[in-house]
Amino acid sequence: MRNILIIGAGRSASSLIKYLLEKSESENLHLTIGDLSLELAQKKTQNHTNATAIALDIFNETQRREEIQKADIVISMLPAHLHIEVAKDCITYKKHMVTASYISDAMQELDAAAKANNLIFMNEIGLDPGIDHLSAMKVIDEIREKGGKMILFESFCGGLVAPESDTNLWNYKFTWAPRNVVLAGQGGAAKFIQEGKYKYIPYNKLFRRTEFLEVDGYGRFEGYANRDSLKYRSVYGLNDASTVFRGTIRRVGYSKAWDMFVQLGMTDDSYVIDDSETMSYREFINLFLPYHPTDSVEIKLRHQLKIDQDDVMWDKLLELDLFNPNKIVGLKNATPAQILEKILTDSWSLQPDDKDMIVMYHKFGYELNGVKKQIDATMVCLGDDQTYTAMAKTVGLPVAMATLQILNGNIKTPGVQLPLNKEVYLPILKELEEYGVIFHEKEVEYKGYK
Amino acid sequence: MRNILIIGAGRSASSLIKYLLEKSESENLHLTIGDLSLELAQKKTQNHTNATAIALDIFNETQRREEIQKADIVISMLPAHLHIEVAKDCITYKKHMVTASYISDAMQELDAAAKANNLIFMNEIGLDPGIDHLSAMKVIDEIREKGGKMILFESFCGGLVAPESDTNLWNYKFTWAPRNVVLAGQGGAAKFIQEGKYKYIPYNKLFRRTEFLEVDGYGRFEGYANRDSLKYRSVYGLNDASTVFRGTIRRVGYSKAWDMFVQLGMTDDSYVIDDSETMSYREFINLFLPYHPTDSVEIKLRHQLKIDQDDVMWDKLLELDLFNPNKIVGLKNATPAQILEKILTDSWSLQPDDKDMIVMYHKFGYELNGVKKQIDATMVCLGDDQTYTAMAKTVGLPVAMATLQILNGNIKTPGVQLPLNKEVYLPILKELEEYGVIFHEKEVEYKGYK
Repeated sequence: MRNILIIGAGRSASSLIKYLLEKSESENLHLTIGDLSLELAQKKTQNHTNATAIALDIFNETQRREEIQKADIVISMLPAHLHIEVAKDCITYKKHMVTASYISDAMQELDAAAKANNLIFMNEIGLDPGIDHLSAMKVIDEIREKGGKMILFESFCGGLVAPESDTNLWNYKFTWAPRNVVLAGQGGAAKFIQEGKYKYIPYNKLFRRTEFLEVDGYGRFEGYANRDSLKYRSVYGLNDASTVFRGTIRRVGYSKAWDMFVQLGMTDDSYVIDDSETMSYREFINLFLPYHPTDSVEIKLRHQLKIDQDDVMWDKLLELDLFNPNKIVGLKNATPAQILEKILTDSWSLQPDDKDMIVMYHKFGYELNGVKKQIDATMVCLGDDQTYTAMAKTVGLPVAMATLQILNGNIKTPGVQLPLNKEVYLPILKELEEYGVIFHEKEVEYKGYK
Repeated sequence: MRNILIIGAGRSASSLIKYLLEKSESENLHLTIGDLSLELAQKKTQNHTNATAIALDIFNETQRREEIQKADIVISMLPAHLHIEVAKDCITYKKHMVTASYISDAMQELDAAAKANNLIFMNEIGLDPGIDHLSAMKVIDEIREKGGKMILFESFCGGLVAPESDTNLWNYKFTWAPRNVVLAGQGGAAKFIQEGKYKYIPYNKLFRRTEFLEVDGYGRFEGYANRDSLKYRSVYGLNDASTVFRGTIRRVGYSKAWDMFVQLGMTDDSYVIDDSETMSYREFINLFLPYHPTDSVEIKLRHQLKIDQDDVMWDKLLELDLFNPNKIVGLKNATPAQILEKILTDSWSLQPDDKDMIVMYHKFGYELNGVKKQIDATMVCLGDDQTYTAMAKTVGLPVAMATLQILNGNIKTPGVQLPLNKEVYLPILKELEEYGVIFHEKEVEYKGYK
């Protein structure tokens, strides 16, 4: 039996563990699933004979090292900042390691040690980062192999609700950490390069400069710019491409409506509101509106944001029950962002039968024999239920598949890795198709921006 | 002779030193003027027999302590964060101290030691903070003495150009640190209380929610909210006042125009622009506008900000020569805010004959015998020239006057002090009138906000 240690049994581990358990007989696998919560770990074993659940405190050095020593490979599904101690032990005890997180500086520093010990530390092999790398590099390599030169790369990804569960005016529910949704785009301007020009979008314009995306069978979406689109420019070999842009996908109209909160100042996480605990939703909104002795909160907000009486923006606000004087915030010393998150959670939480949806959209512009061409690649993945969500599948399956490929010696390149090599992306993209994660590529007219 | 050590001979020290030199014969004063630049210190002595210039490096502990030992009182005109070592020495050698800066936590911690040694550490006795405290406390005390109850306090201050030098469309030039003007209002929402309701204005709305102010003989101004209006609520005894607001004064129309830079993202100081050194002003503007192959930077900006062709906002931008493709930024690794400061400095620097102007406006709302009343107090101070500016006079004269009052035993209360007591504000406000710093108080109709 090959022993796989999985650290962290949270919701993103469900599809990952299911996949490995299904393969455990044919592939001779035994899983040790460790979590601070033994109950959570036990639930994930599904009483399978090839799985053992343990209570694992990664800050307990002795226990952590014992478990790592017993494994052939370690999967860390911990929050990103907690990988590093596990990674150091993996160097010490010569174990491969897999994570779905961005490579931190501390992780990168282990590259030489990993190589010296012929260990594979595969990172960023979840959804985004992960499937975006796999699917982008496949097309980029194909373009280059036929002699094309990349001139444009745009890549969008979003976690949304499945069409059947898309029941509110915002066409949005929280399918992942709500806090990240509320804080999206904060902390500096969004930066990208378009037709050779650097462009910066300040936070207060971010949600007003979106791009439309059509996905066959799913209709129209919009994308707003991510903070730093240029992060992967060099690792993808796109330093000469004149347009490089990464964005987040929402349904059309979401961003324009979200911008109302931005303009009002309700997404600010930098200061605490006085008396937030006992404040009503209505009083919270009124904090951001000019004082008036008789004008209502409603008319002041309409005036401030110039919302006509027949504008659907207004209905979107009403749907959130924002103006309710009886709903109490109930959070002590909360920031505006925390209060907004609370209000949205009332309306945007998934219902028991709701399913989620992941949408990814890449545009590859290239020049071949003097002709400009474009390939668009799209992927839509729907959740099965609230355990095997689209998010859990797209994050967990590539992690699980990479783990097995490493154990089986098909992924060979040692060091701290991103999944950019053919030996990684080809088998994993192929296998993902069996699980409904399928990219549709098509040649389209190159429009660029000229 | 009484020895006064003045540390820091920058531009805010000119009127301060002039005042003390004029009093030096009658009051038996000798000034030691220390600055890192001996030349600057020498210039400020005006070859007066009662003044000695020295090169003083405050990080040279031995020299700093020697000079402090020789003094009877120390004036620190250093940047605020540099006061503390001087202050500690003043405790050690039992010297009084005067600054125009906000009381830092470190300074506040010396309160008990200052009291134990019967030393007066007078702070916040420049313009703002300083003259605002003096003039506000005088009226507040008078209202309370006649039995009134404070219900509203609004206080505005601004450094502007004198009417005769007011020659551009923005009605503004840099009369003080340009960087602070560019960064004004950043770093969190502006917070105040209005008719008993807390209010928060986010940065992206700050310059669109202004209040008009009329000053007899000088016309109309506008005020935008300061970051924290509530800082002095308790020290002024205004915890029961239902409106407390502090703001910055500009000429009408400045804020609406400044907001264009805010909306474009050009005041951001949190990230560095690539290739800023060789970039033209025009290219800088274009960073913040959507890409288009043929539309001009001008039309894109007009569209983005919805500026009609006959709107004076447009002329304000043209006046700054923003769209010039030949003017080069010339700053390495500069933030948007630094580049904007450079562009504005081209247009907004004071010319040799230009004079500055300080405007202060207080509103005091109170209830007396069941009737709501209001007193407005205004002060306008004009600069004499570019040495004895309105800023130098209003910052330096109260510092100088307080120093002399302390030496003469008229200001007696020991400890780390703000100028809130009658023993401070009465003589200083009276003497300031001789120097043209005169408050005009008048009863007006109480409007409040009801």
